[in-house]
Amino acid sequence: MAIVLGPNRYGKAQTRLVRVVRDGERHELRDLTVDVALAGDLAATHLTGDNANVLPTDTQKNTVYAFAKKHGVASLEEFGLLLGRHFVDSQPAIDHARVTLTEQPWERLGPYSFARHGGETRTAVVTVADGQAFAVAGLDGLVLLNTTASEFHGFAVDAYTTLSPTTDRVLATEVSARWRYASTAVDFDAAFADVRAMLVEGFVSTYSYSLQQTLYAMGQVALSERPEVAEIRLTLPNKHHFLVDLAPFGLDNPGEVFVATDRPYGLIEGTVRRDDAAPAPEAW
Amino acid sequence: MAIVLGPNRYGKAQTRLVRVVRDGERHELRDLTVDVALAGDLAATHLTGDNANVLPTDTQKNTVYAFAKKHGVASLEEFGLLLGRHFVDSQPAIDHARVTLTEQPWERLGPYSFARHGGETRTAVVTVADGQAFAVAGLDGLVLLNTTASEFHGFAVDAYTTLSPTTDRVLATEVSARWRYASTAVDFDAAFADVRAMLVEGFVSTYSYSLQQTLYAMGQVALSERPEVAEIRLTLPNKHHFLVDLAPFGLDNPGEVFVATDRPYGLIEGTVRRDDAAPAPEAW
Amino acid sequence: MAIVLGPNRYGKAQTRLVRVVRDGERHELRDLTVDVALAGDLAATHLTGDNANVLPTDTQKNTVYAFAKKHGVASLEEFGLLLGRHFVDSQPAIDHARVTLTEQPWERLGPYSFARHGGETRTAVVTVADGQAFAVAGLDGLVLLNTTASEFHGFAVDAYTTLSPTTDRVLATEVSARWRYASTAVDFDAAFADVRAMLVEGFVSTYSYSLQQTLYAMGQVALSERPEVAEIRLTLPNKHHFLVDLAPFGLDNPGEVFVATDRPYGLIEGTVRRDDAAPAPEAW
Amino acid sequence: MAIVLGPNRYGKAQTRLVRVVRDGERHELRDLTVDVALAGDLAATHLTGDNANVLPTDTQKNTVYAFAKKHGVASLEEFGLLLGRHFVDSQPAIDHARVTLTEQPWERLGPYSFARHGGETRTAVVTVADGQAFAVAGLDGLVLLNTTASEFHGFAVDAYTTLSPTTDRVLATEVSARWRYASTAVDFDAAFADVRAMLVEGFVSTYSYSLQQTLYAMGQVALSERPEVAEIRLTLPNKHHFLVDLAPFGLDNPGEVFVATDRPYGLIEGTVRRDDAAPAPEAW
Repeated sequence: MAIVLGPNRYGKAQTRLVRVVRDGERHELRDLTVDVALAGDLAATHLTGDNANVLPTDTQKNTVYAFAKKHGVASLEEFGLLLGRHFVDSQPAIDHARVTLTEQPWERLGPYSFARHGGETRTAVVTVADGQAFAVAGLDGLVLLNTTASEFHGFAVDAYTTLSPTTDRVLATEVSARWRYASTAVDFDAAFADVRAMLVEGFVSTYSYSLQQTLYAMGQVALSERPEVAEIRLTLPNKHHFLVDLAPFGLDNPGEVFVATDRPYGLIEGTVRRDDAAPAPEAW
Repeated sequence: MAIVLGPNRYGKAQTRLVRVVRDGERHELRDLTVDVALAGDLAATHLTGDNANVLPTDTQKNTVYAFAKKHGVASLEEFGLLLGRHFVDSQPAIDHARVTLTEQPWERLGPYSFARHGGETRTAVVTVADGQAFAVAGLDGLVLLNTTASEFHGFAVDAYTTLSPTTDRVLATEVSARWRYASTAVDFDAAFADVRAMLVEGFVSTYSYSLQQTLYAMGQVALSERPEVAEIRLTLPNKHHFLVDLAPFGLDNPGEVFVATDRPYGLIEGTVRRDDAAPAPEAW
Repeated sequence: MAIVLGPNRYGKAQTRLVRVVRDGERHELRDLTVDVALAGDLAATHLTGDNANVLPTDTQKNTVYAFAKKHGVASLEEFGLLLGRHFVDSQPAIDHARVTLTEQPWERLGPYSFARHGGETRTAVVTVADGQAFAVAGLDGLVLLNTTASEFHGFAVDAYTTLSPTTDRVLATEVSARWRYASTAVDFDAAFADVRAMLVEGFVSTYSYSLQQTLYAMGQVALSERPEVAEIRLTLPNKHHFLVDLAPFGLDNPGEVFVATDRPYGLIEGTVRRDDAAPAPEAW
Repeated sequence: MAIVLGPNRYGKAQTRLVRVVRDGERHELRDLTVDVALAGDLAATHLTGDNANVLPTDTQKNTVYAFAKKHGVASLEEFGLLLGRHFVDSQPAIDHARVTLTEQPWERLGPYSFARHGGETRTAVVTVADGQAFAVAGLDGLVLLNTTASEFHGFAVDAYTTLSPTTDRVLATEVSARWRYASTAVDFDAAFADVRAMLVEGFVSTYSYSLQQTLYAMGQVALSERPEVAEIRLTLPNKHHFLVDLAPFGLDNPGEVFVATDRPYGLIEGTVRRDDAAPAPEAW
């Protein structure tokens, strides 16, 4: 038995990039944070400190900025594919690249003026390895709430169960979604907009008996809308809003006054997929 | 020389309140976080642990919820005034109440469906003391950016100055604003909407030679629009976006590729006020 | 009635400085974050964008680094005084400087090896204005907890009170303290260590009937120990630990199983001072 | 082709538990945050909202508290194993349980007094499935720094490389570690203490030519010390400390004045393992 090096990777995380396109007086803006992670023949640096195969993370950062100038940012996924292929193609020791991109959206206020648009972010994870490329799109921080049309009852009961069943509750969640495209030939910005719209639609239009049911409905409608999507993974915290007991003050509370709690919270995680889509664990 | 008790106050902080109004199938939603701080004849609890004058902070929290049911939340300021007056009027030992309210905005998706609207929050600070009441409104987290129309030059230079003057830079800030109303007889929701719009307008429409100049312009236009506002205090971090030097890669960079930095940052703070408005330090 | 400029200031915030002293193989380390804020004759930049009186915040940052090399960091307060006096003395337009310093402590692991020591930070606020200088020391993030020796009863009761009195509870808080020295001729590092030790001692040794009583005891013992301290301001959130009701599961819970809650929380704020110390509002 | 449900799980996240043991006047304290995630026959709730197989997350929370009273918290791993086995054994529909525990350490100040001990946390992930049980221990937030004994040169260079080689730099990182035990028959608290000590020892005693080399050394020494550990995964951000260029001010800077940067940062991730240890992907 010996101690050996196992899987490893390295790269530059959290490179902040703001790319402006100036088309006369009207400017466009994309605001990204980029993480690069590379893997390959990296045993020497771990075992002896020989860095001959190590492209510095500082160089990776420089490449992000130079490529932003040379190629622009057509979409998160296309920019990530350019970067990932560059590292794998140009560095003999590197055979695997993952580029993770997060976009902070801005809304237009004028020809060259913008306001940050909320706490929601768009994400993409691009993987280039073994002659293949994968794109996983996603979003974080989409907070949705229905003040009614949600029930929860008929659940399993054991000796530690004190929860009462309910036929009318607030249902709220902060959506994290990741969806894998079956190929990299996709209109990524259009697909993102559609999937996001369907996730919202699935949440709003489902009369819910469990957050799991809502999760499945959201994924089902997104996949129905966009055939390019092979599977979608949803992480839905159940942001509990509890009815406040106002009886001690002689007041009833028919679904009007709630305390929003931070933790603990229920956490519902699930995948909705096409049954004929081959799994691609290396994409995640 | 003796050691004595100085100014003090206590209260419940961060009470989370979601108030739903159900008007048939169409629901309304307000999402608030409320801080209460009370002062008065509180020496005994400090000096001897005698709590006869201490209304528990738990009771203050209960009061927030009960008042939300009984009175609703007409506006942050009116709800805060109700609470502040209640504590001062009903507790003989309490002569000073401050209620701080923060609202997380939601946008409507359907009759009973909502999405959280970004990272921006609306605030109000209400002070009730000595038969007077003050209302200070505000907002946090409004992030604004101009990709041009900003210069910075002609500044003081000393032995530690290395900054180059510029005639074209990105100007970005995250606005924190607090404005004091001259009275409490205000249409608070309408005034908030107007002041917010004018702050945005002031930022967007000012060709800027310094962030200080933009600050003053924002305050000036807000006060011009709303005569109820006696003074406004603005805190504007200068969220630096630095041009990336791409010359080592044989690329120019005419205002296209920027690194957005977190810290350090410039911090510009200033007040714009009416010269005939009496100061009201007790309101802040 | 006209709209005019009121109080204002500007500076560089969050300059991160790590200062190493190399005394042969044994190294010393201080890790600071420095905020500078300057005020004076700054109307022109606000009103017209004329920056002749504006020393760039970039220059302020450079000065922090250059002074760290030239003078070292004897203590937070002394380094802040050097910086504050420099800006007021060297810039004709500047008559007021405030330097806020936060230190992240490290513990020694070896001659040149260190580990970050927890979430607690030491702070100092130095003000130089009108030929005077003030130093306010402090700390944040000192989290203390007693599992017993805390009661709370005999409090005021009204129609919204549901809290039960208790003779045995967990008392926990995260101490934020700021204390003003009567002069700037102080052994600041020694005084800091003593005041911190006394705050801990006051918390641990007080049998408490209210967090207010504990606050006063903490301040009282700190002032008794260090005559240089004119006043101390304490902000003590009551980090509630509630007994979990295990009766539904046939279990009692004699002070053994608690839920630690984040919010809401009680917030206790108070000053303990010497009765013969002149107030110095400009120091805060 | 049809749309179908894929892998899924649910549970209660972030249950805050403080467990006090009262042995006469001397009290012990453990402060945990517990996440439970369950999987099994959960298709019905997703597809139809039939919750018959869903043990409420509220019940899971209650179980954490009740078990803390009944069984105490011998170690994170043993408490997690008790919980995981309970859910799998008692719920016919559940065949997979994962319990994630995070401990915030406290240091003793007195018989019943404690201070929170820094930003570092201990973690454990316990998985119970298919008659097997796995334990993965870990820690987060261990920030280490060497002011010298670190070089970086001999790296790959391409058209985007501008980094200069160095023979003396600050090396700093915030260690996140996870290690898998080969069995669940381990003295978990003792093993944790030893592994943590070895990680620190590996960082301090390695003269480093790359952070990868330091990573491998840390893992190698930890595995050498504790034969129960089958593999260890380390995530090491390279917290860059850059020398400040003081030449414009006529000052040299021989390793004395640094700017600590937040982002971007290098991110080094790697596994060190025994070559005869069977992989256990289901444990992670």
